[in-house]
Amino acid sequence: MEKNFVCKGDICYSKDARTLETCKDGYLVCENGVCAGVFTKLPEKYSAFALLDVTGKLILPGFIDLHVHAPQYDYRGLGMDLELLEWLDIHTFPEEAKYADPLYAKGKYAQFVSEMRKSPNTRGCIFATVHRQSTEILMNLLEESGLIAMVGKVNMDRNSPDSLREKSAEVSALDTIQWIAQISGKYTRVTPILTPRFLPSCSDELMKRLAEIQRQYRLPVQSHLSENPAEIAWVRELSPESRNYGDAYDRFGLFGGKECPTIMAHCVWSDEEEIVQMKERGVFIAHCPESNTNLASGIAPAKRYLEEGISMGLGSDVAGGTRCSLFFAMAEAIRVSKLRWRLVDATWAPLTVPEVFYLATMGGGAFFGKVGTFLPGYEMDAFVLDDSRYHRPEEYRIEERLERAIYLSEDRDVLHKFVGGRQIF
Amino acid sequence: MEKNFVCKGDICYSKDARTLETCKDGYLVCENGVCAGVFTKLPEKYSAFALLDVTGKLILPGFIDLHVHAPQYDYRGLGMDLELLEWLDIHTFPEEAKYADPLYAKGKYAQFVSEMRKSPNTRGCIFATVHRQSTEILMNLLEESGLIAMVGKVNMDRNSPDSLREKSAEVSALDTIQWIAQISGKYTRVTPILTPRFLPSCSDELMKRLAEIQRQYRLPVQSHLSENPAEIAWVRELSPESRNYGDAYDRFGLFGGKECPTIMAHCVWSDEEEIVQMKERGVFIAHCPESNTNLASGIAPAKRYLEEGISMGLGSDVAGGTRCSLFFAMAEAIRVSKLRWRLVDATWAPLTVPEVFYLATMGGGAFFGKVGTFLPGYEMDAFVLDDSRYHRPEEYRIEERLERAIYLSEDRDVLHKFVGGRQIF
Repeated sequence: MEKNFVCKGDICYSKDARTLETCKDGYLVCENGVCAGVFTKLPEKYSAFALLDVTGKLILPGFIDLHVHAPQYDYRGLGMDLELLEWLDIHTFPEEAKYADPLYAKGKYAQFVSEMRKSPNTRGCIFATVHRQSTEILMNLLEESGLIAMVGKVNMDRNSPDSLREKSAEVSALDTIQWIAQISGKYTRVTPILTPRFLPSCSDELMKRLAEIQRQYRLPVQSHLSENPAEIAWVRELSPESRNYGDAYDRFGLFGGKECPTIMAHCVWSDEEEIVQMKERGVFIAHCPESNTNLASGIAPAKRYLEEGISMGLGSDVAGGTRCSLFFAMAEAIRVSKLRWRLVDATWAPLTVPEVFYLATMGGGAFFGKVGTFLPGYEMDAFVLDDSRYHRPEEYRIEERLERAIYLSEDRDVLHKFVGGRQIF
Repeated sequence: MEKNFVCKGDICYSKDARTLETCKDGYLVCENGVCAGVFTKLPEKYSAFALLDVTGKLILPGFIDLHVHAPQYDYRGLGMDLELLEWLDIHTFPEEAKYADPLYAKGKYAQFVSEMRKSPNTRGCIFATVHRQSTEILMNLLEESGLIAMVGKVNMDRNSPDSLREKSAEVSALDTIQWIAQISGKYTRVTPILTPRFLPSCSDELMKRLAEIQRQYRLPVQSHLSENPAEIAWVRELSPESRNYGDAYDRFGLFGGKECPTIMAHCVWSDEEEIVQMKERGVFIAHCPESNTNLASGIAPAKRYLEEGISMGLGSDVAGGTRCSLFFAMAEAIRVSKLRWRLVDATWAPLTVPEVFYLATMGGGAFFGKVGTFLPGYEMDAFVLDDSRYHRPEEYRIEERLERAIYLSEDRDVLHKFVGGRQIF
């Protein structure tokens, strides 16, 4: 299908964080890869566009996974009895070390990309491993899949096993520069993102060098922040001069601001100062509710972040999370926000369906530009969901169908997917 | 397949609440509908038994859903933004009122039974509605399905809409007696269970009459207990003479004891005295983690109940829960226990995989007698799970495959099911 097309069905998208727009039997128009609008009657000027008629099916904006570890896909749902730091040592690091072997990486990454392709997610901000070659393999596979992604070769030069740790800050930085050079101009849909794993695994020297690379190549940044109490205490030891965990990134200029678009995953235990700082710097929070529960980290105050206007999207955080589909992250975001309201702090009401839908679409999409909804001018990311497996769609309002999709849909219900104006199936 | 058979595959079952037993390429032997044991080599005396060879697949004991509302299956995943009492008024009561129409009931119940049949659950303790005829229709469908179930015609004569409320305690009691008479001797696999909805919807007069019926017909009892703070406050108003919510049942003799086997769903907020009372009376707790989260009720101290040796199993509590399969209840039980440990009370460690597996099988099975494991003498409830959709089974230990099944399996992965010694597919 060309970049001009019309998709007819039951359309639902966010106008803002609180407002769902719906259109029964509506026409979603894509012109030059960009949304031209949603119409109850197809305007004459689009009548020659190719029509995908999915009457009775849901048409939703693609989901943006703001935080996912591609090499962890293979062992999701294993070792969930451990907390973060133990889990990293026992499961994550030994597995990631295997990605030194490009052949191993190719097989595993192919499976991850295939699953992400089938899911309702259209874009992702993805952690690879420290390995340059394997990371390029992942990027090749993503480019072929038609998905859009920011992919990071991970940097880590301390506090990790010999098998995985980069030899020095210098080696890590040089490798990163080589990686950037090698992929320069190679892809149309996949771009690099600077990825210091998290503060404990990056020396000051490495952070300095990464900051230079960031400025030189104008790369966005992704990392982890304030996920687990033991991790935070460790950062305090490692970086006693920092006022908080976020400040430990900020000291190196790797914490948001106009010149340094940044995603920080988790922010479960951010203190007041860190929250203010994130807001001021426009740092994006990747809220990963399933992972925060599975690793017994806690419950991030996502409702508060949303109310305060902090930029935020959802992350599957596979393999801290067990499923790529952000439908599940949406359900878990609602669930844990209820428990937080009930058990921790009744100041902040539970998240609603429109709010988590916004987070999965417009909220995370904003990191990619005008992405995540069907307002005119937004890049066309969309998927068609057949929700007839678990109910008769005609018996429900579109808002109700969206709520049920969050709880009941599976990847196999995704019939078609458009990414950046291109139909990938 | 006859009641004598052998099933060969990768077997996993509980020995007790903490201990998993596994047997790779093992033989599970069923003799006269009862488990004769698990063997690494098939004993000569069983060599003539029919063999179901599912080498490489998992063979697990069937799951026992200790708490599920059949008429709510149809609207699971809807209206999850409400708390218990509002949710009952807006969604539950209007829908249940429709079950006055047997034709309506037949259509909806057929779908519930069909889904439960496909799930890994082999038995359930099921709430119907107040309607005698519709309840019998549900029992007919369950009997035909081959599942084993205890089914309750619901009793409620106050604090509910006219369309659903029974006219008086007398009418409710008489209807219950008629229902029992009508189904007497009719089924081999389905039995009645006395089902006062919950204290707020049953007058003292009705409770007295139900207690008489309970004693006369020696019926087990199921109801709800200490689910939501607002509900508990209401019970305190309705029953000021009771020391706690459990005592409000106990005053009528409907709270466990040898002559009155009782399941109480939820027990999220039970106080010390109520907990002691449940333990002394052998009351079974139906722990419904997903529902308790979805309705923002809280997190039951399931680990504590288990450690204290209180009888307990898992409940899907559809439609407070969105899925019948207890695999999902197991995952949610682990998840919320982690949040409880982290955010509420670190005295009690999170639930483990062996523990939630025990709850879903032996824990709940005990309400049905010797049910829920493959130790010799237990009734044969089992299912075969194909876990090759999401990994290569040969690469994992059976314990790991069980953990991944909890997080990743779906009903369509269930290949065969045995209930009470009979293969139903």
